[in-house]
Amino acid sequence: MLVCRRVQSHTSPVNVDAELSRLGALVDGWTRAALAESISPQALRLGAMLEYHLGWRDEQLQPLSTAAPAGKKLRPALALLVCQAVSGDIAAARNAAVAVELIHNFSLVHDDIQDHSELRRHRRTVWSVWGMPQGINAGDALFALAQRVLVGDRSALAAAMSAELNSTALLLAEGQFLDIDLQLGQTPVTLQAYESMITRKTGVLFACACRLGAMAAGAAANVSEAYAAYGLELGLAFQEQDDLLGVWGSAVETGKPEAADVVERKRGLPAAMALSFGDAPAWLRSAYAEPDGAADPQLVQRIIAHFDRLDLRATVEQRVERRYRQALEHLAAAGAREPARGYLAAICAALVARKT
Amino acid sequence: MLVCRRVQSHTSPVNVDAELSRLGALVDGWTRAALAESISPQALRLGAMLEYHLGWRDEQLQPLSTAAPAGKKLRPALALLVCQAVSGDIAAARNAAVAVELIHNFSLVHDDIQDHSELRRHRRTVWSVWGMPQGINAGDALFALAQRVLVGDRSALAAAMSAELNSTALLLAEGQFLDIDLQLGQTPVTLQAYESMITRKTGVLFACACRLGAMAAGAAANVSEAYAAYGLELGLAFQEQDDLLGVWGSAVETGKPEAADVVERKRGLPAAMALSFGDAPAWLRSAYAEPDGAADPQLVQRIIAHFDRLDLRATVEQRVERRYRQALEHLAAAGAREPARGYLAAICAALVARKT
Repeated sequence: MLVCRRVQSHTSPVNVDAELSRLGALVDGWTRAALAESISPQALRLGAMLEYHLGWRDEQLQPLSTAAPAGKKLRPALALLVCQAVSGDIAAARNAAVAVELIHNFSLVHDDIQDHSELRRHRRTVWSVWGMPQGINAGDALFALAQRVLVGDRSALAAAMSAELNSTALLLAEGQFLDIDLQLGQTPVTLQAYESMITRKTGVLFACACRLGAMAAGAAANVSEAYAAYGLELGLAFQEQDDLLGVWGSAVETGKPEAADVVERKRGLPAAMALSFGDAPAWLRSAYAEPDGAADPQLVQRIIAHFDRLDLRATVEQRVERRYRQALEHLAAAGAREPARGYLAAICAALVARKT
Repeated sequence: MLVCRRVQSHTSPVNVDAELSRLGALVDGWTRAALAESISPQALRLGAMLEYHLGWRDEQLQPLSTAAPAGKKLRPALALLVCQAVSGDIAAARNAAVAVELIHNFSLVHDDIQDHSELRRHRRTVWSVWGMPQGINAGDALFALAQRVLVGDRSALAAAMSAELNSTALLLAEGQFLDIDLQLGQTPVTLQAYESMITRKTGVLFACACRLGAMAAGAAANVSEAYAAYGLELGLAFQEQDDLLGVWGSAVETGKPEAADVVERKRGLPAAMALSFGDAPAWLRSAYAEPDGAADPQLVQRIIAHFDRLDLRATVEQRVERRYRQALEHLAAAGAREPARGYLAAICAALVARKT
């Protein structure tokens, strides 16, 4: 859950969770409708697999009376709120919101195959239930569906939004390429490599969601640009906070094992920083040189002690805080209207301050 | 090579091979330019992997002075020729042609992973050189690039073409889903199941290529529809001829083992027909029930003898011939201009009559 910790100091108090739930339910409804009208009767089981991934069916492909948790739907909420911040209404961003959420889910379905992950959100992944070939195919179907929804009204504006979305989708593929290369040890882990990767894997889709929301509302180019800049800082702050929690987060609060990212030798921001220093010790390099680090508790403690000696926790916190302030500046520059502005500021504050 | 055998009897003699080579070279050039301007400097190796698949680099990702064979580029040629048949010029269909060829290649890259195929066009497949995760990602990048090229001019026409292309991409995913289900034995092999699958896997992209060519030329809806109908018949005739050659083709001419499709128990048209008959014998059902049939030469001969007893070769030939005539009728109904009409008729004749 997104609990607003710093919100009061920066913005008027708003109930972000309630607004995100409301918008998420709208996006779910629109996505269900898009799926229902897009899949042929001959391939209903394919549609049902997509609905399984989206949390609406169980492994036997039976409808769930209560949907399984399927993410916070932040990206479509950003598209809708930015549209409202520009135009006063969310309606124009409906297709864009559904499209960015579907693109996000397409990337998750393929990511789970690439990472050989058998679980996501405490449920079995599509490929692990129906096999790798159907997993690849389910991702491809989500990708095509996203595109189809976005250009549904066949307008020039839709074409412009599609050009933006697909420049983003290409960057997502570049980010995935860089991530796999880092995981395979084909590229040395440096702060620069990390930034190239994570900007593409996480930042650009947040930026795109905001840009599409503004475009859908008919914003001028410089206004769309300001919202995209807000989204980029927000996405990167979100990711960096995630990387921080992966090393120093409380196991009680995150629900993950203590220092999970160090145990798994994830090439997150703290590791990228530590390895970027010219004098990174040989033992640290070799600990991160293996594609998967062994769970040696002493080595894990030694790595964390090294990060602490470099004061990396505070360094990451400062980066996150700086991005947070920059995001708010972009929001102000965009001239966002209330009440959407309040929610956009509060989402930013809540993401940055979260402990889970 | 496409050797025109029946062309002379139906159309004025034209040099189809030379025209396809000329158009293919144009498409290659445009695709190279689109790739070069789309991939970031940080991900050049990803771009190079795509160029490997397209035949322009070797496994060490070094440029090839002579491109490796990379398909006949029939789909983009159809888009360009239909555009010319409507408007007198190919220029307007440039983006559409590049997009359909990229979508075709995206589907091949993923198909090779799904089928665990290590070779395509006598070269190692992308996933077999760089691993499954990068293979999935290379396909995704080609998909995104296709989309980006298609909406490059951000026009309402581009949005309409994107809607068509992505309805097609969704059908491709449905076809792939049905194919995997048939291969896994989850769906009984029947003529109806075969037709649902192959229409989606092969027919719809041929139809879409023709439709986009007509749309790009500004054709009226009924004219685009006639060209799409031509493309659908052409694509299905092409596939059915392929299935025929897989059972009865001369090993000398096809370069494949004798009756390769029967050895591999491919669920092609002859098998689908034989299994659709209500009284299909139990031994035949059990021979096709295994995901992969064993290479038992006596059983292979028994299957072929059964197909011959049912006169399936002639039945398939009649279907192909009927589709060929229907394709020509659609071409006439569309009012195609010369010289493009001659090429479109000749492509059809050559595909249907081919022995390899």
